[in-house]
Amino acid sequence: MYSRLVQRVAVVAGVHGNEWTGIHLVKKFQQFPALIMRSSFETLTLMANPKAVEANLRYVDKDLNRCFNKQDLSNPELIVSYEDRRAKEISALLCPNDKQNVDVVIDLHSSTANMGMTILPISKEPFNLGLCDYLSACYPEVRVCFGERYGQESPMLRSLAPYGCAIEVGSVPQGVLSAHQLQQTEMLVHAILDYVDANNQRKLLPTPNNLTVYQAIGSIDYPRDLAGELQAVVHPQLQFQDYKPLHPGDPIFLMSTGETISFQGKTTVFPVFINEAAYYEKHIAMILTEKQRLS
Amino acid sequence: MYSRLVQRVAVVAGVHGNEWTGIHLVKKFQQFPALIMRSSFETLTLMANPKAVEANLRYVDKDLNRCFNKQDLSNPELIVSYEDRRAKEISALLCPNDKQNVDVVIDLHSSTANMGMTILPISKEPFNLGLCDYLSACYPEVRVCFGERYGQESPMLRSLAPYGCAIEVGSVPQGVLSAHQLQQTEMLVHAILDYVDANNQRKLLPTPNNLTVYQAIGSIDYPRDLAGELQAVVHPQLQFQDYKPLHPGDPIFLMSTGETISFQGKTTVFPVFINEAAYYEKHIAMILTEKQRLS
Repeated sequence: MYSRLVQRVAVVAGVHGNEWTGIHLVKKFQQFPALIMRSSFETLTLMANPKAVEANLRYVDKDLNRCFNKQDLSNPELIVSYEDRRAKEISALLCPNDKQNVDVVIDLHSSTANMGMTILPISKEPFNLGLCDYLSACYPEVRVCFGERYGQESPMLRSLAPYGCAIEVGSVPQGVLSAHQLQQTEMLVHAILDYVDANNQRKLLPTPNNLTVYQAIGSIDYPRDLAGELQAVVHPQLQFQDYKPLHPGDPIFLMSTGETISFQGKTTVFPVFINEAAYYEKHIAMILTEKQRLS
Repeated sequence: MYSRLVQRVAVVAGVHGNEWTGIHLVKKFQQFPALIMRSSFETLTLMANPKAVEANLRYVDKDLNRCFNKQDLSNPELIVSYEDRRAKEISALLCPNDKQNVDVVIDLHSSTANMGMTILPISKEPFNLGLCDYLSACYPEVRVCFGERYGQESPMLRSLAPYGCAIEVGSVPQGVLSAHQLQQTEMLVHAILDYVDANNQRKLLPTPNNLTVYQAIGSIDYPRDLAGELQAVVHPQLQFQDYKPLHPGDPIFLMSTGETISFQGKTTVFPVFINEAAYYEKHIAMILTEKQRLS
């Protein structure tokens, strides 16, 4: 239970314009607004990067979800790229003059990695941890994953609100609609709206005693040559094994020459976003996490 | 056995610049040319659409694999789009002045559909049917699929050569390298080169008595509204079921409203390219085929 009542929730899609799952759902919610209405708060929809959606590209000039750190948003000279301008527009909408106009953001993403139903909470605020508890109680296959940066340090759209999360479903290719991932995302959106509504109405919700979370601790790039060309691919034994333990010495990459590269870490980790299409250019073959229990 | 000897084979990739499987393999073959050398013929490599590869897009201006019909190639005014110009360059390379400079094309593609190891022969020439026989004998999971158009009517790059095929592996997202599909494609390239070499040397190769082929007979688009927006997705029971029988009345699409649309055909068909990312813009949700036996 949290003292502050939620007045406004934003369901956001198209932060990346080729992640069709959320985009299709938000269009559906715009057509049938009653689906996301609840009695105790208002729900908005936002298509974050309409130009990228139109072009079926992740972005037009640069990744919109790296344009939201406070310094960039308040820099009036940072207006050359479309996404920098769009970030300022979205910021003015969600928190004009640093006043919170939207309390909860639900940011819909998809991944070519086998992310299943992943929740990336905006922060470790009790409200958000309670949300993760509730979603895990509703759907035991939900995984909760924490990034490395939060709040003012985070360049992500969702950092504009104190409460909420990103939903990351997969594996689904970019530019493809899959019924399975659409259904999973829609179920999660409804469960989140139910959680906010129940919290506003001071209703008790079922939550587990222990919450398992995956805390990002770093990332690994593909082996490359001096020109930056890939020399290896994710090892077939690791492909689609997101959230499974990776032990020191386990196969991690398969070189073009046929050689297997094994994991050089000293402890067991749990890789996620394995072979995500959008992360090649970020030099990320996978993100490593530690499995933790919060009680 | 065919009277004509093959002098030159082209291994082609990047006809679509975001289909990384073939692109990565051709780069590997360019680095290690011995891999694709055989004693009885010369093997070239060709990166068909380097600008699209650089941009990680299917194409820059238009689909290159729709630029190769004879009329367009001989139209000197058709030079506005990059792909129309590039098609003329490739045509001049593979068959200058209508003289065959390359006898066999192996054109490497990938699909977001569950195409497994699909061979799309250039034509029903005995040489190409023998190739399909041989590949099926090597790898029983190989599927042979015939398009609707051949020869001068076909706008595809591979129609520039009399012999050869496209290889279509999947499911793999665009802009992703998957070890499994890389291995499958590489195995098939080697088997094709072996077939050409054996044929040149008049060696007998094992072939099955019967060849099963899938002949394209048409396609189905997604249900759309008047503005062209998708109103449905491929039904979860049909997703990834490429090459499986689809009977009249079977579920085919799932509407946003939850309603199931069933297949209205009068006979059993075998859909392929189900939910291929690149085919949304072509208004193709799947291509329907008939299963046939050639003996």
